[in-house]
Amino acid sequence: MARARTRQRQLTKPPGSLGRLEALSVQLAGIYGTERPQTGDKRVTVAAGDHGVVAQGVTAYPQTVTAQMVLNFLQGGAAVSVMARHVGVGLSIVDVGVATPLSSHPGLRVVAVGRSTGDITVGPAMTRAQAQRCLEEGAALALEVAQEGTGLVGTGDMGIGNTTPSSAIAACMTGAPPERTTGRGTGRTPEELGHKIAVVRRALEVNRPDPADALDVLAKVGGFEIGLLAGVILGTASARRAVVLDGFIAGAAALIACGLCPQARGYLIASHRSVERGHRVILRRLGLRPVLDLGLRLGEGTGAVLAMGVIEAAAACLSEMATFAEAGVTDRPAQSQEARP
Amino acid sequence: MARARTRQRQLTKPPGSLGRLEALSVQLAGIYGTERPQTGDKRVTVAAGDHGVVAQGVTAYPQTVTAQMVLNFLQGGAAVSVMARHVGVGLSIVDVGVATPLSSHPGLRVVAVGRSTGDITVGPAMTRAQAQRCLEEGAALALEVAQEGTGLVGTGDMGIGNTTPSSAIAACMTGAPPERTTGRGTGRTPEELGHKIAVVRRALEVNRPDPADALDVLAKVGGFEIGLLAGVILGTASARRAVVLDGFIAGAAALIACGLCPQARGYLIASHRSVERGHRVILRRLGLRPVLDLGLRLGEGTGAVLAMGVIEAAAACLSEMATFAEAGVTDRPAQSQEARP
Repeated sequence: MARARTRQRQLTKPPGSLGRLEALSVQLAGIYGTERPQTGDKRVTVAAGDHGVVAQGVTAYPQTVTAQMVLNFLQGGAAVSVMARHVGVGLSIVDVGVATPLSSHPGLRVVAVGRSTGDITVGPAMTRAQAQRCLEEGAALALEVAQEGTGLVGTGDMGIGNTTPSSAIAACMTGAPPERTTGRGTGRTPEELGHKIAVVRRALEVNRPDPADALDVLAKVGGFEIGLLAGVILGTASARRAVVLDGFIAGAAALIACGLCPQARGYLIASHRSVERGHRVILRRLGLRPVLDLGLRLGEGTGAVLAMGVIEAAAACLSEMATFAEAGVTDRPAQSQEARP
Repeated sequence: MARARTRQRQLTKPPGSLGRLEALSVQLAGIYGTERPQTGDKRVTVAAGDHGVVAQGVTAYPQTVTAQMVLNFLQGGAAVSVMARHVGVGLSIVDVGVATPLSSHPGLRVVAVGRSTGDITVGPAMTRAQAQRCLEEGAALALEVAQEGTGLVGTGDMGIGNTTPSSAIAACMTGAPPERTTGRGTGRTPEELGHKIAVVRRALEVNRPDPADALDVLAKVGGFEIGLLAGVILGTASARRAVVLDGFIAGAAALIACGLCPQARGYLIASHRSVERGHRVILRRLGLRPVLDLGLRLGEGTGAVLAMGVIEAAAACLSEMATFAEAGVTDRPAQSQEARP
């Protein structure tokens, strides 16, 4: 990273003029261990799972939509499918616990840890063994992807109701009250939001997850797709690749991952700031500043796909721009460089 | 645009969940005249010119850097060259008035309206005939590009000292005092900034440009590359293509273009919010909300290139996503859709 900073100062531009891209490029240099970072291929793992808490009426769409949207991903009609196709991002669609049975499909990876989690207002989402299996399967997937030469690994999610367990995870892991970690999701009225906050509070009271034990938090108030993504984050970081987090659900997965292994933090890039309320609490806790702020609240990995172009550009500028000396461009007097912010 | 809004509501996602992308897609539908907008090819015109006002010591780099950077663009070593190569954006490099003679190069278009403008603290930047020629040459270039199937046309600039005339244009066209339209450019100390503000104020006092006559403003306190870009904006809008503005210099060009033809406004997309102080004044006057906010202050068209991926994704989602009916995905009850923001 020190070598990357030195190289940044020699590139043909006023120092600091590429703003956030310069910090991103230095982070990528650290992740890949070279001052000329190559991002390689790009892939987003979209994990799908269902949530027993939908029985509490926390969402506007029926549970069958999770499976329907998985089919939509496979057929290329969803937002993340369209975006990924346009920018050359590969998608891995993973069923980790969708309630509605899905026909086998060459593009669908089935890692059936369960069929919908339990209703977290009456008991745990899953067993501790299931939580561990989510992590292991996610990490295994990530290592596979890393071996294929993928340098940017995005996280995507699909799961009707999954903002509710994410809000519970965020409240438990950060200590913030459920009012600050719970947003509207696909709901709309103040009454719906108030009900959802009460559901999150009840889930925490009933299960009493231990914030010092992230596996306990995942098992008690998490979700299968959230656990798989936490595993993807850990596996990707262990392989020295960059993790491009999507929005709120990905942030909950990152809290679990960093709870288990704080060093994973340095491998994370927050793609965007979701309008989902609890996302800012998560970003602050993780110390991440999002690349984009586009008012997105879709999930699926759409923010991750959108940010990858900017992240690639950051790496490419550091790796491929000419230095003042190489291009024969006159630099300004050296002493003024010291005042660089 | 009305048809585009209707189609947006039928796509397989919660209404509004793609945030800014939805508004962008509707704007593109209006520009291209279809609810399935295709952005086509992407090109950035990088206009280069020199500025007599550098004699007043307003910049950290010597004037020769303008020509050196043009060579750097042609050799592919500049930031905009690297970014454009990675995302398939074509570059048109145009010499509109570089002071240092440049050798001919197959990638360089020479539209020699002059060789550096005059020092605007002692007289006009150029004659009214030269200002008109900048606009005509820019519009002609834009029409050529439009005929090649380019749907996204970015503006880029290179010109040591060009934040000073841009600040003067912004102050004149918006009525804001020079303190609010003048930023640090490549300078660094408070003293340098204070001097630059005084230079902008003197340029306005000496030349007394008429804000109701944008051609007068361009001639008296503008720049050759700023005028060419204003012409590119007008030509692109007239051809019903989208203009992707880079940062502060592009904003000054847009003020000139919209001063001449207010209808051009609807064809503009602000790629990013520059840290250069006067940019926010320009964006507010034009009523534009930038797509990206990455702390950039480089120019060259780098912000425009970076935003094009997001803009393309916005169009692609509107054009290619499946509707609820097509994908067999259950929509939520219809009455709740009415509350859509």
